[in-house]
Amino acid sequence: MKRRLFLSGAGLAAGAALASSLPKPAIAQDKIEWKMVTSWPRGLPGLATGAERLADRIGKLSGGRLTIKVFAGGELVPALGCFDAVKQGTADMAHDAAYYHIDKEPAAGFFTAVPFGMTADELNGWVYFGGGQELWDELFAKHGIKAFLAGNTGVQMGGWFRKEIKSVKDLQGLKFRMPGQGGDALAKLGVTVVQLSGQDIFSNLQSGTIDGAEWIGPYNDLSLGFYKITKMYYWPGFHEPGSALQCMVNKQKFDALPEDLKQIIAAACAAENDIMLAEFNGRSPAALATLVNEHKVQLMQFPKDVVTAFGNASGQVMQDVLDKGDDLTKRIAKSYFKFLKDAKAYTKVTEAAYTAARALKFRYPEG
Amino acid sequence: MKRRLFLSGAGLAAGAALASSLPKPAIAQDKIEWKMVTSWPRGLPGLATGAERLADRIGKLSGGRLTIKVFAGGELVPALGCFDAVKQGTADMAHDAAYYHIDKEPAAGFFTAVPFGMTADELNGWVYFGGGQELWDELFAKHGIKAFLAGNTGVQMGGWFRKEIKSVKDLQGLKFRMPGQGGDALAKLGVTVVQLSGQDIFSNLQSGTIDGAEWIGPYNDLSLGFYKITKMYYWPGFHEPGSALQCMVNKQKFDALPEDLKQIIAAACAAENDIMLAEFNGRSPAALATLVNEHKVQLMQFPKDVVTAFGNASGQVMQDVLDKGDDLTKRIAKSYFKFLKDAKAYTKVTEAAYTAARALKFRYPEG
Repeated sequence: MKRRLFLSGAGLAAGAALASSLPKPAIAQDKIEWKMVTSWPRGLPGLATGAERLADRIGKLSGGRLTIKVFAGGELVPALGCFDAVKQGTADMAHDAAYYHIDKEPAAGFFTAVPFGMTADELNGWVYFGGGQELWDELFAKHGIKAFLAGNTGVQMGGWFRKEIKSVKDLQGLKFRMPGQGGDALAKLGVTVVQLSGQDIFSNLQSGTIDGAEWIGPYNDLSLGFYKITKMYYWPGFHEPGSALQCMVNKQKFDALPEDLKQIIAAACAAENDIMLAEFNGRSPAALATLVNEHKVQLMQFPKDVVTAFGNASGQVMQDVLDKGDDLTKRIAKSYFKFLKDAKAYTKVTEAAYTAARALKFRYPEG
Repeated sequence: MKRRLFLSGAGLAAGAALASSLPKPAIAQDKIEWKMVTSWPRGLPGLATGAERLADRIGKLSGGRLTIKVFAGGELVPALGCFDAVKQGTADMAHDAAYYHIDKEPAAGFFTAVPFGMTADELNGWVYFGGGQELWDELFAKHGIKAFLAGNTGVQMGGWFRKEIKSVKDLQGLKFRMPGQGGDALAKLGVTVVQLSGQDIFSNLQSGTIDGAEWIGPYNDLSLGFYKITKMYYWPGFHEPGSALQCMVNKQKFDALPEDLKQIIAAACAAENDIMLAEFNGRSPAALATLVNEHKVQLMQFPKDVVTAFGNASGQVMQDVLDKGDDLTKRIAKSYFKFLKDAKAYTKVTEAAYTAARALKFRYPEG
């Protein structure tokens, strides 16, 4: 049954040709090659390299029974076309961010990041143990897609500004690059929000077409060289407090896999979820030190009234998602906001309290 | 070669008997059953259940070629005897915390948690991408052990106190349960530090033998019922800001595995590293709400001068580890403290700044 399905399915491709000529039971001969489309430029540190690492791990864990060919954004389908490609079976799987598809499903944003929402650790808690995965499955099953958490950037920076932000009125008329619902919140404060891919930010910032841009954080921002144009690097980011990446699999193809290959995909995604966040947290501290010490970047803190304005604008945007959503969107939003409320109270006395305590003045070894 | 080694090794046990009688190539007949010892009472939420989940995942990913039998603490070897058991080959692998073995290797504590050290996310960054794993491998190779990160509790709470802590002098003469280098720091402030297993805390706290105790956090502390004895639950914890659990494997046995089984163990550990932290972060918020709302627990913040005293005492303890260590211990300590210094600067403008910003007053949906 399984073998027949693979041979007639779009995903098999060169599978049969790869099978070894040694005598083996039927199951060992089912070598499958799948296509993974991504939203990332080839080699983009953290994201593209994470997708490659995920694909490579699936091949290794399966002893070569399931190998994954990875396509950069635009190679097989457009960078933002991963959802449709997996839905239609053009690709077997994909690595991108769920919030690229909020035009199709407004609730998809909850599975990446929403402004003033959950951190990476909180999101993992909600998805794995707070009912999030079940809601995500229900949402994407409508499109024949099964999705897994598969990476996270951690808290992103507030971005690069060509002029100082002293109060909320300095935001008026500013042309700023910010995607997603964070961008919707900025727009409520009079910002002209611009959508640009990562590669196009530098030239637009340099020419003055935009007054500022957020991208990810020190690890990626250093490599794109924004410090050559402006030295003002703002914190904290509020728009993406821990952006999850997802691995989408065509559900029909996933369901037809033998049990151990299903487990291998799920485990490889969970491992990548761990390792990609660790890469951002592992490489960003040194990148930030380089920005500050070598490139004389100034770390600028948003004034409190600006942060509060970001908060109220974000609250309006997210209340709109809740109010205007269909039944399933409402259920997802309510589950997310309920978990977030308790998570805030927990984080306040643990992670937030600890990092504040550690910032007090006392003697401690510095290596 | 591989098969011979397994058959003569202590770890094979019932392996040959489990092999199917169907005709299969040699590699598919090598069914291996390994013993995993742990430090955990059977069923302990988060830790024991995480070790079980890890063992189960290895079995599933390998399609049953490598199955793991899990032993609770004391069943095969004493709860704190995992290191020796894996070193000597009594067990093939183990799940516990590296800092249980600082008497053998003072640097082992860096791979669990040290007072005022790295959070879970920072530790993952250092181990995977900051040179930590290579140093860990060097340290444990001396004992014939290969170790992987395999879970984390996140930031632990400051613990339960029977009397209020208003200043540093209230710590004088207090009898308090706290393990590890955090306990060493408390001792410098006049606390009589007591070591007790989790099961023994309740009775000692109830009888007044101890004045207080830290255990883990809301998820586990709720189940042990400490709120029945005292309502004062202190934050922030400083002693274990993200305690990593480890999976140790006998290095000779690990090296003899076929490549895909090595990859399966590594990936299963990384997946568990992700999922266990998510379980603590997923279940603790609701547990904290239950403690506060149903059991009327008071969340008490340590005064700033007490936190600063904890900081200076922790700094002295960790400086001692650096100063008195052998060459390898010094190299590990220096790598850790150097990474931590940069990580603090990064966390200050990201995670810490974001959670502080989110705590400001603004309107936001609550589910």
